[in-house]
Amino acid sequence: MRCRILLVGFGNVGREFARLLLERRSELAKIHGLDAAVVGIITGRHGSVERARGIDLRKALRLADAGASLESCGRGVHGRSAECIRRARADVMIEITPLRIAPRQIGVDHIVAALSGGKHVITANKGPVVYHYRRLKEMARTQGLGFRYEGTVMDGAPVFNLFQETLRGIRILSFEGILNSTTNLILSMIEAGRTYEDGVKSARHMGLLETDPAMDLEGWDATVKACLLANVLMGGRLRPEQVPREGIASLTSKRIEAARSARKRMKLIARGWREGRSVKASVSLEAVALDHPLASVDGTSSSLVVRTDMLRELQIIERQPALRQTAYALYSDLLAIRDGRLSP
Amino acid sequence: MRCRILLVGFGNVGREFARLLLERRSELAKIHGLDAAVVGIITGRHGSVERARGIDLRKALRLADAGASLESCGRGVHGRSAECIRRARADVMIEITPLRIAPRQIGVDHIVAALSGGKHVITANKGPVVYHYRRLKEMARTQGLGFRYEGTVMDGAPVFNLFQETLRGIRILSFEGILNSTTNLILSMIEAGRTYEDGVKSARHMGLLETDPAMDLEGWDATVKACLLANVLMGGRLRPEQVPREGIASLTSKRIEAARSARKRMKLIARGWREGRSVKASVSLEAVALDHPLASVDGTSSSLVVRTDMLRELQIIERQPALRQTAYALYSDLLAIRDGRLSP
Repeated sequence: MRCRILLVGFGNVGREFARLLLERRSELAKIHGLDAAVVGIITGRHGSVERARGIDLRKALRLADAGASLESCGRGVHGRSAECIRRARADVMIEITPLRIAPRQIGVDHIVAALSGGKHVITANKGPVVYHYRRLKEMARTQGLGFRYEGTVMDGAPVFNLFQETLRGIRILSFEGILNSTTNLILSMIEAGRTYEDGVKSARHMGLLETDPAMDLEGWDATVKACLLANVLMGGRLRPEQVPREGIASLTSKRIEAARSARKRMKLIARGWREGRSVKASVSLEAVALDHPLASVDGTSSSLVVRTDMLRELQIIERQPALRQTAYALYSDLLAIRDGRLSP
Repeated sequence: MRCRILLVGFGNVGREFARLLLERRSELAKIHGLDAAVVGIITGRHGSVERARGIDLRKALRLADAGASLESCGRGVHGRSAECIRRARADVMIEITPLRIAPRQIGVDHIVAALSGGKHVITANKGPVVYHYRRLKEMARTQGLGFRYEGTVMDGAPVFNLFQETLRGIRILSFEGILNSTTNLILSMIEAGRTYEDGVKSARHMGLLETDPAMDLEGWDATVKACLLANVLMGGRLRPEQVPREGIASLTSKRIEAARSARKRMKLIARGWREGRSVKASVSLEAVALDHPLASVDGTSSSLVVRTDMLRELQIIERQPALRQTAYALYSDLLAIRDGRLSP
């Protein structure tokens, strides 16, 4: 089966996905019967390009890594990105533009354009899903198109797939998790004796800080993920702006000292729970005891603890993920759509 | 959709499944469109019974709990259990007879009889799956029937479903886990200062010891589970008798003391890994450091850490499961088959 992919966004995740496709192309064809080709790349900073026979991904990677325009990879594409997406001849659009905190999202325009142009949608962009989940899901369903978003929380570790595809008939009562790698790494560094500023600098140096550092440091990323889990898995209707949120920017050395001497660890904890018929969420910086299920989740690892009506407590931990893990989320969503599993 | 269930085995798990069905019957009908009725119960010790209109499960539970025969619940069934299963008018057979360590398994006869009689199969019995996985899977596939076994490892926590249904295109490189609750609980008790004999007595009192205590204490249960994971998820061809196995019966107080003074914890660790083209497994009693991913898995909790080509390290932990968790595995397998997901 030929699968023409349109990549919208070609930053770290998009490029890692391109590398993964290059490595696995023959496996995809042989084992999964999928002849996957990237036929278009739409970006904000490297220009946009399409080529029906498939773009040379090695060349595209070289150009993007050098900060050059992609347009020599095929035919240059101009005009509004949403319009380009709607018109493009492709089977699947992969949306991986950066997160914005606002109901108005260019990512939503991209997804709506893809669905109305008859394309399946895969995204690792949390914005469109957290603000417009019901609408986008319904739009994909009525058109018989795929809409999958596993990469939005905990990279490639199955979160939505786990609860929506395998834990049938289960009701989630509450969850708590460490969902932002960058702040967890900085907290681990501070515990190891380094300063906050030093930790932030290291995270930036390692390419782990979002373009807008407030997304990580002020808890926005964790809050968006908490809302995503609450909205998708628990039927909530939360907006990140309305949720009690704390980041690590307010952390004082006194508070760290107090935690240490009480044999506790500072963690940025995302929570979701039910209150009567409504669903609530929060993100807060807390001192947790050493025997807490999240206490040993260190560095860039992340973890989710879920309490349900049928399973008392189920925890998943993803240790030390790298970019490959997010690219894998897109890859597994692609295979799921190939299998006819249009939504998780 | 009417779903006629034949229960083969009515011990702790079978009765808990009956309780779960009673509780969820209206939800099953309303939300999942499944009109589930138990139309037959075949047991070794409480007689066997069938009733086309559905057995009164409250009455069956009362009788079995009192150690009485089930035959007043319907029409008594006599003859070889496999023959009764083949002939029974049912849509799904649930096989939950006790584990035996031998290629010759009454459980296999039951599953073969069910499949050749046109019934879907759900089992929480490890024996048939560990010895005859390929044959049973192939038999179910060619007949277009369901064959699911989520309850064989880590109760209702998704293990097979997780890797086979959601982690598409992934290759497992190795795993390690704490897979036997009873020995893990006894080890936790010993660490808390109690003797081995005392721990065994408590486990028996709590109903956690298998009918044959060697299954738990000599590591057989953990070994069978390690082989199951290796065979099903990694394509191995292991038999439990051929795998290096250690139990906790050999544990000396000296060894516990040595672990404690080295700030380590004694754990019964099940492992699987690749060696060239073959798959290996083992179960051994080890002193693990406090920062080991399995060190904090206490009491009846169980956990699996998996390393794959695409996700570096993924861990799942099931905390303090009870019988309900195993019954849920059967329930989720039933819903999966209803959805047309015949195998994980």
